[in-house]
Amino acid sequence: MTLYQKLAKRLREHIQHDFYKQGDKLPSVRQLAQEHGVSISTVQEAYRQLEQDQLVEAKPKSGYFVCQRKKDNLPSVSRPPQRPLEVSQWEEVLNMLMNRGSTKGLQLQHAMPDMTSSTLKPLLKTLADLSKHKPELGLSYADIRGSEELRNQLCRLTVASGCQLHPDDLVITSGCQEALSVCIRAVSEPGDIVAIESPSFYGSMQAIKAANLKAMEIPTHPETGISLEALELALDQWPIKAIFVTPTCNNPMGYTMPEDRKEQLYKLAQSYDIAIIEDDVYGDISFQFPRPKTIKSFDTDGRVLLCSSFSKSVAPGLRVGWIAPGRYRDKVTHIKYVSSSMCPVFPQLAIAKFIRQGGYRKHIRQMRQNYEQQRDHLLQVIKAHFPSDTRVSFPDGSFILWVELNPSIDSIKLVERCRKVGVDFAPGPLFSATGKFRNGFRLNYSEQTMEKRENAIKTLAKIIREFHPETIAQKSL
Amino acid sequence: MTLYQKLAKRLREHIQHDFYKQGDKLPSVRQLAQEHGVSISTVQEAYRQLEQDQLVEAKPKSGYFVCQRKKDNLPSVSRPPQRPLEVSQWEEVLNMLMNRGSTKGLQLQHAMPDMTSSTLKPLLKTLADLSKHKPELGLSYADIRGSEELRNQLCRLTVASGCQLHPDDLVITSGCQEALSVCIRAVSEPGDIVAIESPSFYGSMQAIKAANLKAMEIPTHPETGISLEALELALDQWPIKAIFVTPTCNNPMGYTMPEDRKEQLYKLAQSYDIAIIEDDVYGDISFQFPRPKTIKSFDTDGRVLLCSSFSKSVAPGLRVGWIAPGRYRDKVTHIKYVSSSMCPVFPQLAIAKFIRQGGYRKHIRQMRQNYEQQRDHLLQVIKAHFPSDTRVSFPDGSFILWVELNPSIDSIKLVERCRKVGVDFAPGPLFSATGKFRNGFRLNYSEQTMEKRENAIKTLAKIIREFHPETIAQKSL
Repeated sequence: MTLYQKLAKRLREHIQHDFYKQGDKLPSVRQLAQEHGVSISTVQEAYRQLEQDQLVEAKPKSGYFVCQRKKDNLPSVSRPPQRPLEVSQWEEVLNMLMNRGSTKGLQLQHAMPDMTSSTLKPLLKTLADLSKHKPELGLSYADIRGSEELRNQLCRLTVASGCQLHPDDLVITSGCQEALSVCIRAVSEPGDIVAIESPSFYGSMQAIKAANLKAMEIPTHPETGISLEALELALDQWPIKAIFVTPTCNNPMGYTMPEDRKEQLYKLAQSYDIAIIEDDVYGDISFQFPRPKTIKSFDTDGRVLLCSSFSKSVAPGLRVGWIAPGRYRDKVTHIKYVSSSMCPVFPQLAIAKFIRQGGYRKHIRQMRQNYEQQRDHLLQVIKAHFPSDTRVSFPDGSFILWVELNPSIDSIKLVERCRKVGVDFAPGPLFSATGKFRNGFRLNYSEQTMEKRENAIKTLAKIIREFHPETIAQKSL
Repeated sequence: MTLYQKLAKRLREHIQHDFYKQGDKLPSVRQLAQEHGVSISTVQEAYRQLEQDQLVEAKPKSGYFVCQRKKDNLPSVSRPPQRPLEVSQWEEVLNMLMNRGSTKGLQLQHAMPDMTSSTLKPLLKTLADLSKHKPELGLSYADIRGSEELRNQLCRLTVASGCQLHPDDLVITSGCQEALSVCIRAVSEPGDIVAIESPSFYGSMQAIKAANLKAMEIPTHPETGISLEALELALDQWPIKAIFVTPTCNNPMGYTMPEDRKEQLYKLAQSYDIAIIEDDVYGDISFQFPRPKTIKSFDTDGRVLLCSSFSKSVAPGLRVGWIAPGRYRDKVTHIKYVSSSMCPVFPQLAIAKFIRQGGYRKHIRQMRQNYEQQRDHLLQVIKAHFPSDTRVSFPDGSFILWVELNPSIDSIKLVERCRKVGVDFAPGPLFSATGKFRNGFRLNYSEQTMEKRENAIKTLAKIIREFHPETIAQKSL
């Protein structure tokens, strides 16, 4: 056992025996190093180990804290059908998308970031300046792979997630949706099977449908992500062409797959010689610091296609996304070109400057802090108002969480009823290829003030109780 | 024979016997009405007939003129392989796209409009104002079908091409490339066959390739477009799923299919019960006034998917395109959503205002006049400097034309040679699914001043002569 492992073991015991309680601040790195007579880096390695085990968390500029216990009432591990199936649910997705226009009511529905922060001002100023002073730049065709300036900055940015990329390794896209859609088409032929998490983001599932592929939903744990064991069984049984995952701040569950499991997933893909499409769109707003590594960071043979955008960390209206496509670069460039030719230049240049001048780092630091507070608040009001058999995910980042109600409650009926009173959320079946998770739904905690959100949750809770079997049983007495 | 037919016949004879010569102004409508004792509308109908026959052309605010004789040295009717084939040539297209970055040299290569006109000022001002005063509008998600304000204006605009559309009939896209790509995917299943013109736009052919379809190139006439006779034979022989055409200001040839042939094409599609994808991206910069009708204007059963954008009429960097998908609306909405989610809002709002306030009409009127002059100039310098066996198309609109050299000259070698001296153009094989048209190429006449263009053409001519068999024969003497 190495020094850091010994230290980690000792700290773990202290936490497990409640010497340090949930939420407690832990000793500083310097303090521990002195106390145990070890180097700073040994203590850092020990803390890193405990972070991976989700026992402690780092808060920027504050130090290390004992994690809140997450395991109370987490959603259950999913049990999807054990065969590849066509994706359905388009009507339901469209219904939700068409509902975007309505600005009335309390929106808990869309995965929309907070865009009111003053930390966005430098970006908005650059956009306005470009538009005013260099209008001709915004009119022409540009590099099909995207602005070189932005690709340079992305290479710097992705060092934080463990990547070493060259600007030529990147292709800029119109948001993450185009990135995912292009990658799905690049790694498969019509009729192929793609393995996905369950629940999974509806946008990627609909892209699988549009590419004439089948989705194989894999059981997924609300804390550790896609089950590697179930995935391996599926890989043995079916000619799966690619794995599509959102392993960091998962949509809709919010979990982050532990680093060692990310590496195992990569090795599994390697041993079956298939591609991984990694959606990292929420990765930069993880509450962990430094942010978690991507699967791409383990990629030695170019089989991981990393997709992201600034839609969740900054603003979706910018439509700036990107792909690090590894060995699939040529195919990805082709499909990106036919998909929508080149991307508008101004948002790319503005984001590049925002990163270069440090505004982006400042903005996401602020957002992480806000979202973490909002998460704790939402969890608290859910606990206070929802029926006691409700299960809720515990996001490690992002601004969305997943709720699982009593199995007899139908979220599609619930959403229809709630829409009438002006409360909107994303019903569970959107997140399944085959309309499962009828008793689940996704809530957003970025768009409202705490007060408005609390009111929305109270209204929602009241309606949930009407649908709850206990209430129905009482009524029938 | 009706009154207008009689009058048309008489005028036709005058033209054919050179009573009115090429380029001559014809009598005004009022004058002819008085002279022949017929109504104004009878004369208008007669002139419309002659326009269709391409004997006369209307110039805005000037009246009717005898057309320049186009039939001198037009390119030959194409003779593509008589079977469906996979699209190749991606390497060549990519090579050209990657060359976009270079701003040096004389660009005759890209289909880039003139963006220096002062008529664009109101649009640029709106863009700058939106960015400055309503930044929050540019940050959010928006209607998946595109801004309602823009869709409203498009309905007004498309009246000029004979369409009657409702805003709900439209889907906004990221440029015409996304429109074409989405439509191709919406009307076909992998493995299907799509009939196309020959030569044909490389962007649509590459979209056919990416959708795992085969292209059936149909012989195409340099004045009247896709051969309906050859198309019918192909429809009899192969299970063709859709017809993809650019019938108005064709890319790369510049012809406009006569109205009656457009209608016949529609009826052919009807009798074989297949879809037509109509690329109208150059339609608004036709030199005819009023602009030619679209095939969509004949569509009574929703089988025509009309695609366009403001990339050629205004500026490609705006990335504002659109689809009138007819009966394929739901499928098109699905594929557009998975392809790139919603489009950026500012360019949509700015274009909508530009149309509403009359700026767009003014701008394209100006562009039409400019491009027509530039065309005449380019044709003249080509005639003066290129070898006498050169054939050149005669565009009815747009800012591109097609050149066919002596069959022994290879445009790929030519383009490599010319690039070294800073002159760039689009080599012929890009416009064939299978790399035909080696002795053809496309030139743009929008981007340069007349002087620069003339210099570029002189340089090009000199190199062409080096490759010409006559020169080679002389050298070997």
